[in-house]
Amino acid sequence: MRRLGAIEAGGTKFVCGVGHEDGTIIERVSFPTTTPQETMSLVLDYFTGKNIEAIGIGSFGPIDPVLGSPTYGHITTTPKPHWGGYNLVGAVSGQFQVPVGFDTDVNGAALGEYTWGAAQGLDSCLYITVGTGIGAGAVVGGELIHGLSHPEMGHILVPRHPEDTYGGFCPYHGDCLEGLAAGPAIGSRWGKPAGELPADHPAWAMEAHYLAHALMNYVLILSPQRIVMGGGVMKQSQLFPLIHTKLQELLSGYVQHPALNAEIGSYIVPPQLGDNAGLSGALGLAKLALARA
Amino acid sequence: MRRLGAIEAGGTKFVCGVGHEDGTIIERVSFPTTTPQETMSLVLDYFTGKNIEAIGIGSFGPIDPVLGSPTYGHITTTPKPHWGGYNLVGAVSGQFQVPVGFDTDVNGAALGEYTWGAAQGLDSCLYITVGTGIGAGAVVGGELIHGLSHPEMGHILVPRHPEDTYGGFCPYHGDCLEGLAAGPAIGSRWGKPAGELPADHPAWAMEAHYLAHALMNYVLILSPQRIVMGGGVMKQSQLFPLIHTKLQELLSGYVQHPALNAEIGSYIVPPQLGDNAGLSGALGLAKLALARA
Repeated sequence: MRRLGAIEAGGTKFVCGVGHEDGTIIERVSFPTTTPQETMSLVLDYFTGKNIEAIGIGSFGPIDPVLGSPTYGHITTTPKPHWGGYNLVGAVSGQFQVPVGFDTDVNGAALGEYTWGAAQGLDSCLYITVGTGIGAGAVVGGELIHGLSHPEMGHILVPRHPEDTYGGFCPYHGDCLEGLAAGPAIGSRWGKPAGELPADHPAWAMEAHYLAHALMNYVLILSPQRIVMGGGVMKQSQLFPLIHTKLQELLSGYVQHPALNAEIGSYIVPPQLGDNAGLSGALGLAKLALARA
Repeated sequence: MRRLGAIEAGGTKFVCGVGHEDGTIIERVSFPTTTPQETMSLVLDYFTGKNIEAIGIGSFGPIDPVLGSPTYGHITTTPKPHWGGYNLVGAVSGQFQVPVGFDTDVNGAALGEYTWGAAQGLDSCLYITVGTGIGAGAVVGGELIHGLSHPEMGHILVPRHPEDTYGGFCPYHGDCLEGLAAGPAIGSRWGKPAGELPADHPAWAMEAHYLAHALMNYVLILSPQRIVMGGGVMKQSQLFPLIHTKLQELLSGYVQHPALNAEIGSYIVPPQLGDNAGLSGALGLAKLALARA
């Protein structure tokens, strides 16, 4: 089986690994994210001599993932020192003459769940991570969505909960979805970290309100065949039934499909790749790059 | 050049035509929408002997456009008498042994603008029609979006305008986008038909508020390369600059792309196919069906 390289490029560390086309990860290592020179030197050294036939990179952003764009493969306007404008794909392609796949970390995770995880065997899916931020990626007809740029679905605008007085923390939009429903919003709204709130705390019904509103919009715009919800906040498994009920209430029978009615419990599900999501996603990007080469 | 058949299946009339692969419509005719037996008999007679190599149908809905589904090609749960559960594709395929394309009217219109109109030459676009209802379709990587079903983007939920006391008229969702911003909402809110309100009436700033919120969500979820806005309400051309400004205010510089900044005037545009939109869209569906056959 062919060997593929995977890079999960994060703001704190770069996780690198080697895997197979069936999604198996054979080995992994991680390096701290310091300067591009330092970090990438370790990354490129790691892959040298590993006989990989393609490399996939799931990266922190914002990035330019649009093939044919002059800044394709670059990290664009990140506030992270040294990395703004860095040509990540160029650095990898300069060293290894293999196909390189490149996308956002969350698009990578969506592709991973689609290829080997909770959305395996379908034509489309949406993956959303709810943690210190909110991000989502979608596969439609086997392809990750791009257009002008990559989606930024965590920042959509949804109606506020009528009893919510919290202003939202997004530096750009204030009370966009991320501003109202990511982990830090829960912490600020209720005065203690989300992880310390009991499962029956009213925080979770409010959280489900916001996430169900977001899912309603994703469903009506993308009509994905499954929705995979991951990230730190979604470890609160009591959220799933609350979201199921609230989404059905919002849709109000408008879309007639078993997935949104009797089968909603298998429509909105947790990820299957768990802590491997990032690296598996990058492996998925490598596999896709190889298929296209 | 090959001859293609096009059917714009509406709730009031069926417009049928013959055209070429370059989008030219050679001839057209229309029949009232009565019962499937009556209307389809006229439609099938019309195409007989026309030497068409494929037929496209853009239909009123809801429909099942998902290839491989047991009810593919059917109109599903429409309140329109006689048409619920009718197999439109089956009726056409039973008579003509040519590839048949089938989608919603608004997906057809999106495909038409993408193939021959305001979004020609791009990889992706979104088409939204704002009239007695609100519908939108999107092309991503050359394909119309489907998944579980077809999108129903007109019913997304957006934050209310702080000064709006109107409750919304959507029978399913009350104050969803369609409930708050389609033509009938403007009429009910301001006490006279939208078409009678002067161009400087505050109605239009409120309308732009809702449409810009919807566009914000479409942009963040789909990242389309162009947005085409049509339908009766969008004939109020003063809406375009109001929407441009409001969308930029909402995005707040978050997505760095010329299309959303200096070039927004050529990013959000009126349709180019005008009154041909429906039939051209159906022709686009025929062309797509032929390409896939």
